[in-house]
Amino acid sequence: MRKDYQNEMQCVSCADYYGREDAGTCKVCYEEANETEEELKTEIDDLKAIVAFLKLSSPINHLHTDVILVASDGVSHQSDLPVPAHRAILASRSPVFRAMLENDMEERRSGTIKISDVTYDALRAFVNYLYTAEACLDEQMAYDLLVLAEKYEVKHLKTHCEKYLMARLNWDKAIASYAFAHQHNATKLQDAALTLITDNMDKLFKHEEYNELVENNPRIVVDIYEAYLSKQINTAACKSAGN
Amino acid sequence: MRKDYQNEMQCVSCADYYGREDAGTCKVCYEEANETEEELKTEIDDLKAIVAFLKLSSPINHLHTDVILVASDGVSHQSDLPVPAHRAILASRSPVFRAMLENDMEERRSGTIKISDVTYDALRAFVNYLYTAEACLDEQMAYDLLVLAEKYEVKHLKTHCEKYLMARLNWDKAIASYAFAHQHNATKLQDAALTLITDNMDKLFKHEEYNELVENNPRIVVDIYEAYLSKQINTAACKSAGN
Repeated sequence: MRKDYQNEMQCVSCADYYGREDAGTCKVCYEEANETEEELKTEIDDLKAIVAFLKLSSPINHLHTDVILVASDGVSHQSDLPVPAHRAILASRSPVFRAMLENDMEERRSGTIKISDVTYDALRAFVNYLYTAEACLDEQMAYDLLVLAEKYEVKHLKTHCEKYLMARLNWDKAIASYAFAHQHNATKLQDAALTLITDNMDKLFKHEEYNELVENNPRIVVDIYEAYLSKQINTAACKSAGN
Repeated sequence: MRKDYQNEMQCVSCADYYGREDAGTCKVCYEEANETEEELKTEIDDLKAIVAFLKLSSPINHLHTDVILVASDGVSHQSDLPVPAHRAILASRSPVFRAMLENDMEERRSGTIKISDVTYDALRAFVNYLYTAEACLDEQMAYDLLVLAEKYEVKHLKTHCEKYLMARLNWDKAIASYAFAHQHNATKLQDAALTLITDNMDKLFKHEEYNELVENNPRIVVDIYEAYLSKQINTAACKSAGN
């Protein structure tokens, strides 16, 4: 610690001395900020307690289940394993399940909901999330759950998966992520991937998946070029306005 | 705003000038604190989204209910109205309901749970809380729900009611609150009421409810005197240690 020189003050937080150019706050503002922080922490503790109270345990070993979900990925046999659940919970978490179970549809009568194009593990994780708001994600699971969340309109899970995937987005995954996000209406992930692509247009032709995308989905390649062109026009307009 | 005098610095928060004795933080600590505040606010938003996702709608107009609760306050007839619910939710929120519904007890077979000494309104609010973690409290409702929360071991609701009652505790209610809290194991409310009483022992004989308590529950009046005596002994010990 340095000496208390003329024209310096001591910080009540780190206890170091600082000059005028490094001035932060006066004592009153510091104390108010401290109070705010304490209040925010209390609010967090209260909310965590509410979450703990509202969280349900996974239905796998539950009594009183009144519906089963069956995964069908069209390949493995493991997917015939049923995942038990409660109609009330499914209906409260997903408007799609609600419609299935409250209107006079096949699922309501049979008590069985078939979920296609999904593995047993993903279905189990999906149902588990509906009870607990928790999912142990890796990249594949985030993709699988995002698809289910979009299909069954579980917004909170979709946002959760989208955030996970956005945090791991990089150039190698940019084109695949962009195509995936476009297909499943994950607009934030799509925007992030598109920005990454249009920021690196000089590398576009060299990207492994570019030719594949042109072949399979030329419509969204056009979207990339349109976004790039708009960006160039905007940049040009900003520059000329600056001059 | 004052002029920038020698030996004063400007607060980056309120923009006022301060002298050495009013020094708060340096700029680095101020910026760190700001970041922390932003992070806490983000955490709060995330938790609020989880709460919104996990909250169930009240079961009153639900389909798929598989159990009914019936209030009996021994007086009004309104209490014969049933409150519908889901076994899975009751069992997940209360270990007492879980035992009733998972073991081979009368309630499991009949699908009806009788709740004694409670009004229909309180029972409805209680069940509603099990679904939503929300209750619209006034003082009577807080007392009623605390009793139910204690009986059915719903800790989160008990804490919620206790906090509500503690915030409204005053001398007039001190003795009744103390007796109530003692009866229903509301230890924080009991401690707060006891502290309020032992801080005002000179007024104790004049309190309207004192004689009634002596008559009906002399055992807990003894607790009051014991707490008072301990306090006096402690105070004396502190004083003599200080001399």
